[in-house]
Parts: sequence; C-alpha cells; structure tokens
Amino acid sequence: MTLSNLKMSRRIRRTPFTDKVEWHGVTGFTVVNHTLLPKSFKNSVEEDYWHLRKNVQIWDVGCQRQVQISGPDANKLVQWITPRDLSKASPGKCLYVPIITENGGLINDPVLLKISEKKFWLSIADSDVLLWVRGLALGAKLDVEINEPDVWPLAIQGPKAVHVLAEVFGPSVRDIKFFNFEWFDFEDSTQLIARSGYSKQGGFEIYLQGSKYGSRLWESIYEAGKKYNIRPGSPNIIERVEAGLLSYGNEMTIEDNPLECGLDKYCNLSNDIDYIGKKALQSIAANGLKKQIRGVRFEGTPLEACSIPWPVTSKTSKKLIGKVTSGIYSPRLKINIGLSMIQKDYWDPGTEVLVHTNNGKIVKGQISNLPFED
Amino acid sequence: MTLSNLKMSRRIRRTPFTDKVEWHGVTGFTVVNHTLLPKSFKNSVEEDYWHLRKNVQIWDVGCQRQVQISGPDANKLVQWITPRDLSKASPGKCLYVPIITENGGLINDPVLLKISEKKFWLSIADSDVLLWVRGLALGAKLDVEINEPDVWPLAIQGPKAVHVLAEVFGPSVRDIKFFNFEWFDFEDSTQLIARSGYSKQGGFEIYLQGSKYGSRLWESIYEAGKKYNIRPGSPNIIERVEAGLLSYGNEMTIEDNPLECGLDKYCNLSNDIDYIGKKALQSIAANGLKKQIRGVRFEGTPLEACSIPWPVTSKTSKKLIGKVTSGIYSPRLKINIGLSMIQKDYWDPGTEVLVHTNNGKIVKGQISNLPFED
Repeated sequence: MTLSNLKMSRRIRRTPFTDKVEWHGVTGFTVVNHTLLPKSFKNSVEEDYWHLRKNVQIWDVGCQRQVQISGPDANKLVQWITPRDLSKASPGKCLYVPIITENGGLINDPVLLKISEKKFWLSIADSDVLLWVRGLALGAKLDVEINEPDVWPLAIQGPKAVHVLAEVFGPSVRDIKFFNFEWFDFEDSTQLIARSGYSKQGGFEIYLQGSKYGSRLWESIYEAGKKYNIRPGSPNIIERVEAGLLSYGNEMTIEDNPLECGLDKYCNLSNDIDYIGKKALQSIAANGLKKQIRGVRFEGTPLEACSIPWPVTSKTSKKLIGKVTSGIYSPRLKINIGLSMIQKDYWDPGTEVLVHTNNGKIVKGQISNLPFED
Repeated sequence: MTLSNLKMSRRIRRTPFTDKVEWHGVTGFTVVNHTLLPKSFKNSVEEDYWHLRKNVQIWDVGCQRQVQISGPDANKLVQWITPRDLSKASPGKCLYVPIITENGGLINDPVLLKISEKKFWLSIADSDVLLWVRGLALGAKLDVEINEPDVWPLAIQGPKAVHVLAEVFGPSVRDIKFFNFEWFDFEDSTQLIARSGYSKQGGFEIYLQGSKYGSRLWESIYEAGKKYNIRPGSPNIIERVEAGLLSYGNEMTIEDNPLECGLDKYCNLSNDIDYIGKKALQSIAANGLKKQIRGVRFEGTPLEACSIPWPVTSKTSKKLIGKVTSGIYSPRLKINIGLSMIQKDYWDPGTEVLVHTNNGKIVKGQISNLPFED
C-alpha cells in the first residue's frame, strides 16, 4: 500500500472544523461524502486506541452529511426507504436505518434523527443518499422538500465525554439516553446533541447547525476537556473492528444485503409495513443466507488496514470461502482481527481458515462471533 | 493548505490500473466517485503540463465510473435527466450531457455514450448518478435496468496519442472522429475506444471492459508509447484551467445551473422535449442570469490550487462579486489564472477586480473570457 498525498481542491469539501484539525497537526485524511475526514494525528492508531478507551476525544465527523426531508409526505418517504419499522418512532429519537435497493442491496446505513413528525435528518455514510431520495420523490411525485442543511456533526467520544459536555452545556447533558437527542444553547443558537457515535466507548454527537459556530464550539469543548486529557481523534479502526462496527463501503456495499450484514433486527420482514426491497428481503430470508458477516482472528505480524479485501480460504477444503474487508492488529487481544463476509458452510465460530494478507503472507486464523470477546 | 496522507481502505476503491500507477511512483491521489484518481507523479504539475502539450500521457481515469442504463424505457429515462436534445443521437456517439434537478441545479456533467438504441453508459463526474437514476426509475416505475458495469476508462492524451494507439489497435484508430467511438480487439476481448478526454490536446479514452485486462492494456500502451516519450499523468490543472474545462464539485455544484456555467448549447429551452428542470431553466433564462462563469487573470506569486474558493471583489465598488473556484499559475501566460463565478454587473471582460487568495494576499486581476487566449 502506497502512502500518498491527498490532493486538495474545492470538490473535497472542508468542514467547519478543518481549520482546527489542521491546527492540531492532522497527518492523514480520508474522503467521505466528498468531505474531509481526519484519520490520524501525531500519535499512532494504537496510542489513540488506548487513549480513547480511558479518556475523551473530539472528532471532526462533519463528513456525516445530513439529508433533510420535510413536508407532508416526509414520513411516507422515510418509511419507504428503510426496512426498519418507524411507526412507533417519536421525535427526539435516533434510529439506525439500513437503506436498500429494490433488490435488497445496501445503499447506505445512516442514523435517522426524527426532528419532528414532518422533519427528519439522515446522518449518512459514504454515498449520495440525497440523490437517491430526491430521485424517488420526484419519480413518485411525493410532496417533500429535500436538501443538505448547514449541519456538521462533531463527535465527543470516550468515557469522559459526558463530563466535558456537562461543563459546556450543563448537567442535563447527563440525562440524554443512548440514541436520543435533546436541544442545548450555544451562544445565540440552539444545538442538537445526541448520545451516539461511531465507538463503543460512549459519547455524544453535536449536530452543529451553522458553520459559523464551528471554531468556537471546538474551542469551548477542547478548553473544557483539557483537565480530562482531551485529544483530537477520529473513528479508530482497532476499536471499531473489536466492537464489530461495520463501515459502509468497507464491510457492506450495494452487493450485500442487510441480512448478510447481520442487521436483521433493523429489518421488518412482515407485511405490516411497505418499503423498497421488502419482497427481495422476504425471498432472501425464505431461501436462507449464502454468506454472512463474521469476525476472524488470525496470526502473523501486526498488519495495516486493508485496501483490497484479503481472501479467506478454508484450511481443510482449500476453497475460497470469503474475504476480510477491514483488518487490523488488536493490541488488547494480541492478535490480528478482521471483519469478514464468510460463506455459509464455513461461518461457524472456531472454523479454521487461512487469510491471504496484502503483505503476501498466508496466515492461520479462526472464525469468531462479533463483537470480538476477550 | 496542509499536505496530508490519504488513508486507504476498501471504501476508497482501486482501479484495474492502480497497481501500475503505484509501480510508476505516484505521489498524490484524489478521490472521485469513491475511487482513486492519481494526481501527481515525480514531476511537477508544470513539467507535466509542458510534457502533455508536446507528447503523450497515459491517465488512470477509472474513477469516471459508468452508469449503464438499458431496457425498454432506457431512451425515455436518459432524455428525462438532461436538457440536451438527444432525439438525433445515434449509436457510436459521445454526448456531453448536464444532469440537473427540478430546480435546475447541476447534479453531474457526464459524457453519455450511446451504445445502442436501448443501452447507454453515463461516464460520470463526482456524484452518485447511479442513485439518482435508480431513484427516478423506481419512483416513476420505468422498465429499465441500471447498474455499474465492470468498465474503467483509461485516457491516452496529448498530440502523439494517436500514433501510440495506432500501433496497439491498428491504423483505423486514426479515423475515429471527435466524440465518436468505435470497437477494437484487445486479446480475446472487444474494447470501446472514444476520441475524447479531459484535455484540449487531443486524445482517446479506452473504456476498458473487464478489469482482468487492465494491467496488460496499460503495459501494451506504455510499451508502444516509449518511442513517443509517453509518461503516466493525470488531468492537468494548468491545462484545463487555460482551456476553460469545468470540473464538477469545483466550478459547478447543485447550487449552480447549467446556464450560469456557460452550458447553454447543451440546454434545449424549447418545448420540443421534456426533461427534469425544464420549467426552472426556462424561468431562469426568461429572468436573466445573475452570475456566470468567467476567467480571471491575476497577479501575485505563483499559486497552488485552491481548496476554499477565493473571494473576488470589485476594484471600484469594493463589493464581493464572485469567487475563484480553481486557480493556478500558468507558465505559458505567465500569470495566475482562475475559473470563477462572477456577478452580472461585473462579468464583462476587462473588469478590474481583486482576488483574495489563500496565502492571505489580495492581488489585482481582470475578468477574461474563456478559454484563456494567448
């Protein structure tokens, strides 16, 4: 894997926090939704991993762009695009909602924020959901307004996140329940704060509304966080692979369906609701899955993240049985771990496999459940 | 502007040519359509610019992903998404087709390849057109099949491109007319070659069908190109800004319409055809434009490409009158040049302006027509 500079242009959008992460000495970015996502600072991924588990980090996740859907048919459109039953969702809730095609292929896996009965935000992974829902709405002549508002998530993650936010926004931050949100004052604005985030260490996402507040919001949090040893950070690949957190574009693409990705609990397969892809999912479920997401623990020298999926073969039959789509060395479990799509006959935990890593080595491994357990 | 590493993952897709550009020592990438686009090799942008004007370069533009639309309603869908009148287009033609929303905002500006009466490829700029057209088709219940085929453009650009391709594919390559395509044999496959590309120096794009041929296609062309001084290269910002070639995401976004972007000749404003956004464009045309794309020549030290648009103010009224979205030093014109969206009262060539560049300097400039003339 070549390390190369990312060439900047207006097309690769900056966030209201990019100036801040540059000031903090960001050393690597990736691009999500045509927007910069900082991925590394001066510490190693492993140092950041240990720090995240004990302290608090501030992450510029402005790349999680919002698709705002409002108007008389908003509720109808939102239910149409996801297999998750939204009939009982109330305002103030965050809901993880797979979005699929008519064939069941995954288009995105956003968090849906129900702002009001007629207004929703989809906080998206890396694909232009805006175009998908605008196309559907125009084609089906729905009475909705869809746009990308000036909203930029900032994540505060780690066990001490709650103390930092309580200092900035007051003690009632502590009362926000997991995957709920509340509104808080910041200067002359009101901001949405959700208990959520792309780690298992606990934390919050502030859905900053109004780019102009970006620098001062960052500064307020960073200042309050100093006594809790706050650091700038980013979604940590070791932490997320250990936790079995999937990444759209890595573990799941339009070639995979939500049942294969272990998202069954977000898919209502009954005929109680109607949505795009329902018949496909019902048929897939009736016929039984051919592959499903699993963990793999495997030997060898500590590895870097994979850029091309690593083939997985059976140790006994020698057949190609799957692929690792994100893999990394876990310093806590003291072995390489990966998220992998594995064929049915081989997906039982304990199955012995070989992983063909990108440094050319073929190493022994074992299928495991997700999340990885100690 | 910080230079930072691009962090790789499966989500940032490699092309069938990425191994080759790495072998050639690529030093910088950008990301287009979730796919790597090499942007620099060991030479400077300026050296590559001079080389491109005199010789031949091979560019991995596999990021120009294809959206294949086929089936009984394919023709209807393709005309519905663009203001360009396609009624007289015949198979074998490439057509530049702006794609717009119902409000006239630009979604993409692909090249449409009419493969047959019922099969089209859209060779796209940086947005998920696949989701837009699939959403439209599903919403409006059109009888089409839409997918992303295993097709990866490889551009051969520069005045000597024709000689290189004639050696690899035979002399009839020379007969392909501008924005036409023909089919040629390569090993046991048949490949589409178009006379097109993102430079004004002339050249071809091979729409490689079948990733497995990627390495050998690159090698065949590189080998044949050696006596013509071939080099690996990439779309060159100096060359494209001089030529007035726009870039989606840079010069134009969903906030801009095609009339503002100078794409009038691709917009049929009559009632002869129906398409999404027709009423909006008719109304914009009737009311007169408020801003339009222009060139700006401006002084100061040679500049790097801009990451945030540079504000442009009037030298006389001091008002904010526009922004430079791509700017670079032209070693041939010996001045900085930029593509800019400029307000009506100030868009006449010769208007004196000030450009507020990202190195903090405010420099004198003049509005000019596009393309830039010597």
